[in-house]
Amino acid sequence: MKDENSFILKGNIIYSESPTKLICIPQSYLICMEGKVEGVYQEIPSEFENLLLKDHQDALIIPGLVDLHTHAPQYANRGLGMDQELLHWLEQNTFPEEEKYADLDYAKKAYSIFAADLRKSATTRASIFGTIHKQSTLLLMDLLETTGLGCMVGKVNMDRNSPAGLCENRQQSMEDTLSWLMESKSKYRRITPVITPRFLPSCTDELLKDLSRICRSYQLPLQSHLSENLDEIDWVKELFPKAIGYADAYSQLDLFGNEIPTIMAHCVHLTNEEMDLIYENRVFIAHCPTSNTNLSSGIAPVRAFMDKELLVGLGTDIAAGNTLSIFQVMVAAIQASKLRWRLKDQDLKPLTIKEAFYLGTKGGGSFFGKVGSFEKGYEFDAIVLEDNSIKYPQSLSLEERLERVIYLSHIKDKYVNGNCISLLD
Amino acid sequence: MKDENSFILKGNIIYSESPTKLICIPQSYLICMEGKVEGVYQEIPSEFENLLLKDHQDALIIPGLVDLHTHAPQYANRGLGMDQELLHWLEQNTFPEEEKYADLDYAKKAYSIFAADLRKSATTRASIFGTIHKQSTLLLMDLLETTGLGCMVGKVNMDRNSPAGLCENRQQSMEDTLSWLMESKSKYRRITPVITPRFLPSCTDELLKDLSRICRSYQLPLQSHLSENLDEIDWVKELFPKAIGYADAYSQLDLFGNEIPTIMAHCVHLTNEEMDLIYENRVFIAHCPTSNTNLSSGIAPVRAFMDKELLVGLGTDIAAGNTLSIFQVMVAAIQASKLRWRLKDQDLKPLTIKEAFYLGTKGGGSFFGKVGSFEKGYEFDAIVLEDNSIKYPQSLSLEERLERVIYLSHIKDKYVNGNCISLLD
Repeated sequence: MKDENSFILKGNIIYSESPTKLICIPQSYLICMEGKVEGVYQEIPSEFENLLLKDHQDALIIPGLVDLHTHAPQYANRGLGMDQELLHWLEQNTFPEEEKYADLDYAKKAYSIFAADLRKSATTRASIFGTIHKQSTLLLMDLLETTGLGCMVGKVNMDRNSPAGLCENRQQSMEDTLSWLMESKSKYRRITPVITPRFLPSCTDELLKDLSRICRSYQLPLQSHLSENLDEIDWVKELFPKAIGYADAYSQLDLFGNEIPTIMAHCVHLTNEEMDLIYENRVFIAHCPTSNTNLSSGIAPVRAFMDKELLVGLGTDIAAGNTLSIFQVMVAAIQASKLRWRLKDQDLKPLTIKEAFYLGTKGGGSFFGKVGSFEKGYEFDAIVLEDNSIKYPQSLSLEERLERVIYLSHIKDKYVNGNCISLLD
Repeated sequence: MKDENSFILKGNIIYSESPTKLICIPQSYLICMEGKVEGVYQEIPSEFENLLLKDHQDALIIPGLVDLHTHAPQYANRGLGMDQELLHWLEQNTFPEEEKYADLDYAKKAYSIFAADLRKSATTRASIFGTIHKQSTLLLMDLLETTGLGCMVGKVNMDRNSPAGLCENRQQSMEDTLSWLMESKSKYRRITPVITPRFLPSCTDELLKDLSRICRSYQLPLQSHLSENLDEIDWVKELFPKAIGYADAYSQLDLFGNEIPTIMAHCVHLTNEEMDLIYENRVFIAHCPTSNTNLSSGIAPVRAFMDKELLVGLGTDIAAGNTLSIFQVMVAAIQASKLRWRLKDQDLKPLTIKEAFYLGTKGGGSFFGKVGSFEKGYEFDAIVLEDNSIKYPQSLSLEERLERVIYLSHIKDKYVNGNCISLLD
């Protein structure tokens, strides 16, 4: 029973069962059996007493954070060029940077930085956009595999309305996608491919239909963007006049959930009908409040999503989002919901800290299976937070300490599927 | 000519002359003479060539940041209790914490943490609220003096609508204020007192008039709160029905600028008439976007303030604001202005990075005199930013590097009036 993926962590255990149910169990034992959560115990049951015990003393132990939407090649642009809206920003900042990833040397330099920083962050799972370039996307997957994190990675597809250096033709896009899939599908322990049309304006209907067929044939998930910016939404209406909206356009192209596990990032300006479609098709929403703020896109009505029981997680959306920290995105989600409540709609109450914590763990984690909680049978993804580096004069409850580390995070240790991840430089 | 407050820093020099004019001078010499900026030169003029030279190589050197509004006793509460609005939050979180500062031992423990963290931050000047307690406010001033930072600190006055443990009577409030002034007025090199009525609802008209007289007699500045929250504004209307608004109430009590240098924090919901009064009376606005977001107060129309040429700086407003970093407040100011533009008023354009940088340096610094710029004759307050700890694959301009450190700050060195401040734990 002494394999390296079975062990016990001792500390203050905190996790979400639901958006409103936060479990806080002080000074207890979190048991990992073969990479999965066995349970949380006040005393170690006799059958587990031979397992290795790591005592984290007064530290907080929480599920690893889940980033449901980010762009690896844009990490080079984080904290830059923030004075624009989406469509100009793509032209001015994003596309010129992404073109550089045709050069494998540049990709190696840039993706090594991204992979190292993601490894050291509190994130244990992420769904990631690469670029259109097959080789550099494979390189990104190689680099991420060495981190030990669990990631879905997509080679991006774009065959219209894109600069020359980033515009594929449909046939080449399909060939590259298929050959990328052949090389990557079974190569890695914890990195898997995800079909990634950039967004509707940058893909022809034909290419999108091809990609839908690939998802079905190879049983692959899909990630894209939906309803981020008002100009973008108008543009989609022009490009796809037979749809009643942006979500319906994807749906008519057979790219909107149901048997294809799907993440749609943003969803800032959805209609009620679009929310219903998202519910029916079990599409995941990646809520990206730092990005939606930085690009002046608006504030997604997350309270409405939760009231309608939509599936929602959080995304950093680097580099429109300026931080790789899902803790900071939790804070931003709460802050944005407060401003939306104050400025726009007092029927939609702000998010609470508990709800934001749920979204950044179990909410997004569900896209990866049983991920983001410490309930029995969940993948053992955990981070250990040593908040004694945050000095304070008063005594605090566990729930208060969780709130504080969300606002001011400090990580001590990190596990994915029961494997300890290095946090060294 | 070799006194310790005269020296030369070499590096990439960046500072604001105005909200739209950012000066970036690569690889040049910033000369400090007796604690004041002598100038920025491409070559060292012969009369200065005997000065000590510190070569910061490729680092960025910018003016120290200015925090125009924060609460030292609330630092213990940072990142906690963020799910409330102002008036409840004061009752639930703030007042119970501030009551503890009657105990000097507790105050020492808490204020030592605050002072050390402020010292290590990028802030070089701050205007700070203490509590009503005279002794612990003096202790705070003692601790801040040892940091070397330049701070204005106020013993708070409150004689109504406050919990028993924080409610002074008018006479005691005045006696304590006067004796605190006697002890503190000339005791320190860089710490000075500022008269600090908490806000209109917590002070009787009589006490406020007393405080106005003290400001005039002793030539002291004043800091308070104005127009933060809608319920608060309604309450002020009830309490002071003869005023046409919140600012007018202060003005009728002789506590609104003109010969009294005045900071009013927040100013989220001002009328046009109130903005005119602020302009006429040369009142400084401390814009606190992290706080205004966290307490769901709203978004102050900073673009309108700047169009009207009001005097504006930034405040962290700990603990309604969750961060002591003015860099993060710059980011929050830009973000809030974008959301206000998107959700409420497309006539008021979002702030740019240049404007936010100005607000956090020269904008707020002007309250302290010639502070917040590297123009000749300014106080030599500087920070050295070593952004090579932020890895990136591309080459960047100085202006891009400034934007990046604002979003992702790293401090190497810090000076106040030409004195180097320790950044060690």
